[in-house]
Amino acid sequence: MELLDGQLVSKTIKEGLKLKVGQLIAEGKKVPHLAAVLVGDNGASETYVGAKVKACAEIGYKSTLLRLEEDISESRLLGIIEELNNDIDVDGILVQLPLPKHISDEKVINTIHPSKDVDGFHPVNVGKMVQGLPTFISATPHGILLLLEHYKIDTKGKHAVVVGRSNIVGRPMSILLSSNTPTGNCTVTICHSHTRNLPEICREADIIVAALGKPGFVKADMVKKGAVIIDVGITRVPDAAKKSGFALKGDVKFDEVAPHSSYITPVPGGVGPMTIAALMKNTFMACEERSGGSLI
Amino acid sequence: MELLDGQLVSKTIKEGLKLKVGQLIAEGKKVPHLAAVLVGDNGASETYVGAKVKACAEIGYKSTLLRLEEDISESRLLGIIEELNNDIDVDGILVQLPLPKHISDEKVINTIHPSKDVDGFHPVNVGKMVQGLPTFISATPHGILLLLEHYKIDTKGKHAVVVGRSNIVGRPMSILLSSNTPTGNCTVTICHSHTRNLPEICREADIIVAALGKPGFVKADMVKKGAVIIDVGITRVPDAAKKSGFALKGDVKFDEVAPHSSYITPVPGGVGPMTIAALMKNTFMACEERSGGSLI
Repeated sequence: MELLDGQLVSKTIKEGLKLKVGQLIAEGKKVPHLAAVLVGDNGASETYVGAKVKACAEIGYKSTLLRLEEDISESRLLGIIEELNNDIDVDGILVQLPLPKHISDEKVINTIHPSKDVDGFHPVNVGKMVQGLPTFISATPHGILLLLEHYKIDTKGKHAVVVGRSNIVGRPMSILLSSNTPTGNCTVTICHSHTRNLPEICREADIIVAALGKPGFVKADMVKKGAVIIDVGITRVPDAAKKSGFALKGDVKFDEVAPHSSYITPVPGGVGPMTIAALMKNTFMACEERSGGSLI
Repeated sequence: MELLDGQLVSKTIKEGLKLKVGQLIAEGKKVPHLAAVLVGDNGASETYVGAKVKACAEIGYKSTLLRLEEDISESRLLGIIEELNNDIDVDGILVQLPLPKHISDEKVINTIHPSKDVDGFHPVNVGKMVQGLPTFISATPHGILLLLEHYKIDTKGKHAVVVGRSNIVGRPMSILLSSNTPTGNCTVTICHSHTRNLPEICREADIIVAALGKPGFVKADMVKKGAVIIDVGITRVPDAAKKSGFALKGDVKFDEVAPHSSYITPVPGGVGPMTIAALMKNTFMACEERSGGSLI
C-alpha cells in the first residue's frame, strides 16, 4: 500500500507555480490575482477560504478576500461579482459555497464570467469539460487527476466506480475518468443513493472514488485487493480530544481499507490539499489566458 | 418481448405538437420556425435533414432549409448562422453534421445562439443538462428518454450500460440516465473502446444503450434475460436486394437478442424517429421560450 500524499504533491505543484510567478515578476508581467468571496461566517467555509488565500500568498499571487454579511441581498452580491468581472486586475473569482438560503447558487455561478470561473462551475465550462475542450476543470476533480498523474497510476481500461453524483465532484469525476485522456479511458460506473448492491459494485472496482459525504462508508469488504482508493469525503465529526472540538473524517474507513489497497488517499492530507493546488493551477491559467488576450 | 415502437411514439408526439400548433394559430400567435443548414451533399445527411423538414411540414411548423455548397468558407457559414441568430422569426437552428473537413464543428456549434440551439450541442446547454437545469437536451438522448417514458419503463435503481461515449449520444445518455429524474436514477456504466470484458459488463445490465456504430455488435450472449435494449446504431450497409443499394443496420443483432429482451428498439423505426420527435419538441420549446420573452 502506498499513500497518495496530497500534501506533498500539492506542495510540489505550488512550488512549481511559485517559480513561474518569479519568472513573471522578472519579466515585469502581471502576477495572477484571485478574488475570493465569503458570505456569512460558516466555520468550514472560513477554513477553506483561509487555506486558499494562504496558498496564494505562498505562491506569490495577489489575492483579495471579500467578506460579506450573511444577510447581503442576492442582487448586491451579483453586483459585486459583476464588479469583479469588470476589474481588469482580477484573473479568477471564487465564491465559497454553500451560500445563505436566500441566494441562488445557480444565479451566482452563472454571473461569474466564464473566463474568470476558476472553480469551473459555470455551465459553459462544464459543457466544455464534457466535450473535452480546454477549460477550467473544477478544483476537486482536477486535483484528483493531478494526483493520479503524479503517481503515474495507469487508468486506461481500468474499472472506476464513482460513489456520489454531485455537480462538484462525483459527476465531473465520472466524466473525466471515462474521457479519452491520459488520466481517463476508464470504464466508469457512477453510483448514488438509488444504487442497488453498492458493495458488490465497489468490489469490482480497480479505482474507487468515494464522494458521498458519509464518514466511514467504504469498508474493507467493499474493496478488491489492490484497488486504488480516492477518498473525497471530509466531514466534521465531534471529537472532544481535539482542540477544535471536531475531527475530519473521510468516506473511507482508512484503517481497515488501506491494507487492501494499492494506493489510498488519507483524510486529511489527500484530496483536500490537491483541491487547493488545482485551484492555484486554474488561477495561473486564467491569468495566462487573459494576459495572452485570448479569453477562454 | 415488446417492441419499443419509435415510429408509433414519434407519431403520437408529433400529433400532440400539431394540436398545439393549431392552438397557436387559433390564438393568432407565431408558429415555431426551424432553420436547417445542410452543407454539401452527403447522402445520409440529405436523408436526415429531409426527414426533419418533412416533420415540420406535418406538424405545421415553418421550416427553412439552407443548402450550402461543400466548399463554402467557414467564415461565410458562421456569418449565415449569425444571420439566423438575429432573425427574429427563426426559433431553432440546426446545422447537420458532419461538416466538411475545412470547417470546425466546434466553431459552428459555439456560434449558434444557445436559445436557438435545438440540437442541444452548445457547451452552455450541455453544461446545464449536466447540472440538471432546464435546457435543450440533444435530440437522440432526449428521444430515448421520451421512449422510456412512453412505455413506462422503470429506470430507478436499474443498472444501465451505455456502450459508446460520443458527445452526441453515449456521453449525454450516461449523464441523463444517472441523473435524479423520473427517467433517470440508474446506476450507469459507460463503456468505450478501452473497456475490458465488455460482454461481461453488458450481461449485468438491466438496460443496454448501444451507441457505438458497429453493426450487429451486441449479440445474444451479451444480454441478460429480460434486459431493455436501446439500439442507437444506424449504419448503411451495402445490400443489393434494396432499391437504394443499402440497408440500415443497428448495433444490436436484433433477431438473436430480441428473444432475450423485455423491450427492444428495432432499426429502423426505433431511436431514429424518436430523434426527430425530440427535435420537434425542442423547437416548440424554443418558440415558446422566445415568445414568452425569456430566452433560455
